[in-house]
Amino acid sequence: MTAVFNQIAIIGVGLIGGSIARAALESGAAAQVVLFDGDANALKRAGEIGFGKPAASIEQAVSGADAVFHCVPVGAMAATARASIGAMKPGAILTDVGSVKGNIARDWRSLGRADVHVIPGHPVAGTEKSGPDAGFASLFQGRWCILTPEQGGSAEYVAATDRLAAFWTKLGSKVERMDAQRHDLVLAVTSHLPHLIAYNMVATAYDMEAVTEGEVVKFSAAGFRDFTRIAASDPTMWRDVFLNNKEAVLEVLGRFDDDLTALRKAIRNGDGQKLFDVFTHARGIRREIIEAGQDTAAANFGRDKAEE
Amino acid sequence: MTAVFNQIAIIGVGLIGGSIARAALESGAAAQVVLFDGDANALKRAGEIGFGKPAASIEQAVSGADAVFHCVPVGAMAATARASIGAMKPGAILTDVGSVKGNIARDWRSLGRADVHVIPGHPVAGTEKSGPDAGFASLFQGRWCILTPEQGGSAEYVAATDRLAAFWTKLGSKVERMDAQRHDLVLAVTSHLPHLIAYNMVATAYDMEAVTEGEVVKFSAAGFRDFTRIAASDPTMWRDVFLNNKEAVLEVLGRFDDDLTALRKAIRNGDGQKLFDVFTHARGIRREIIEAGQDTAAANFGRDKAEE
Repeated sequence: MTAVFNQIAIIGVGLIGGSIARAALESGAAAQVVLFDGDANALKRAGEIGFGKPAASIEQAVSGADAVFHCVPVGAMAATARASIGAMKPGAILTDVGSVKGNIARDWRSLGRADVHVIPGHPVAGTEKSGPDAGFASLFQGRWCILTPEQGGSAEYVAATDRLAAFWTKLGSKVERMDAQRHDLVLAVTSHLPHLIAYNMVATAYDMEAVTEGEVVKFSAAGFRDFTRIAASDPTMWRDVFLNNKEAVLEVLGRFDDDLTALRKAIRNGDGQKLFDVFTHARGIRREIIEAGQDTAAANFGRDKAEE
Repeated sequence: MTAVFNQIAIIGVGLIGGSIARAALESGAAAQVVLFDGDANALKRAGEIGFGKPAASIEQAVSGADAVFHCVPVGAMAATARASIGAMKPGAILTDVGSVKGNIARDWRSLGRADVHVIPGHPVAGTEKSGPDAGFASLFQGRWCILTPEQGGSAEYVAATDRLAAFWTKLGSKVERMDAQRHDLVLAVTSHLPHLIAYNMVATAYDMEAVTEGEVVKFSAAGFRDFTRIAASDPTMWRDVFLNNKEAVLEVLGRFDDDLTALRKAIRNGDGQKLFDVFTHARGIRREIIEAGQDTAAANFGRDKAEE
């Protein structure tokens, strides 16, 4: 079993960073993993769990790495790259796992290391948990990993992109290359806006707790429980997503709002046909997603109990 | 094992009706189950599955029953009750499983059978599946069943309510008695609005499919997938919920919309602190729900794979 990379560096040992480290070691995609985290306790814990070798500084962490994975909130990517890019080996890969791709490549390329291959990435995988103990090796199995390399790079850059794709494939991911702007629009629809809506619904409900004397929690039904699970995701990560994917999120939010206004009017006017038509339309995409293998049609998708 | 009811009638043999029939027979809560459905194929299928004895007419179905369960969409409750109440035994219980309680008791009491006990009910349980084949006996295990009996009824009425509560308890439910108006407000928060929002998000995304050339389906991430599952629920049932719980839904929707406008402004203005505060606040209710035993904190709550 040949490793894709002899050594990788993981900057940020939370759910994603920890899972990459563990999956890389278990799959043999990397022979060695060096870790760094600005939070000394998290770094220590990651070393104890066995994610790799903790480094004393971010420069030391990246200095021997063939690929450096920045696994920090989107808003912290610029700082961690700036702090470490000078210590990177010539020909090494600089990549990340952020949910927004937009300008990160441009920012990183402006840091003055033309001999480093900047290849942003986004494994579309995760749970609502955070921290080193949330990481597990199978997180990326069967999930997409989107890479947004620059167009028309050198032969060496293309070869580096292929190596990074091979790494993610070895972790179990399906790899797709995509334009960064398109990535940000697609993810605004499939991930960012649903999270915003879920956070908002849960916050609204929380404020209704007073009105309902605790009965919102007591009788929380399936629809709402799913929202609260989504809204349990890391606030810092999601704050940064919305600050950094502003245009796409506001565009999709505008459409969502127009559609919601139409539904509100239908309810107010007792227009059952409009409601029925929208609900039936929405049902169709579910079938497409199941056919695309992105979810299961099993009655309770593995839950013990079903509920409404 | 003594049956709570010698004979019950199930009007409407879909997910809920079928599950009640099956659970009543398996638990021994009812000695006999008689079925009726306006859809002859569904009725035949329910008989084949073994949900009980299909009746030739709705009158025949209810004539020997100690309790009649109307398990049809909220908008059809008035018609099925009107069609069958004349054939009910004196002292029998007239109940339902609808997600809106509001005026159903008043409507039913106006049908001129003071000798029939009108006790509306709502098992807070279900899946996104519909039809007789979706029914299963354990659907109500550990879930709440809310009864909305009238205040200050006769001793006979109170005894009938106790019998109905005992029936649901035997099916595994936790029974709660509640004022009908409060039920409708609480459920508007915990179930009705989340479904409306999910339907709307999915419809918006579906319309974005053209913009994104199929990539919304291909890269549907966890937040969005949960929404599509919720939005796969029965359109007729949900149309009726929104038509019949208009005031409470519009009230909660108004609050949701105000909160969403504030979030939109925060994104537009780059106000990270506001976003962080709302997200952190929303996270709190998740903990309360888990502490209330309404959901599990397990990383993937039984799913094979975790995803973002």
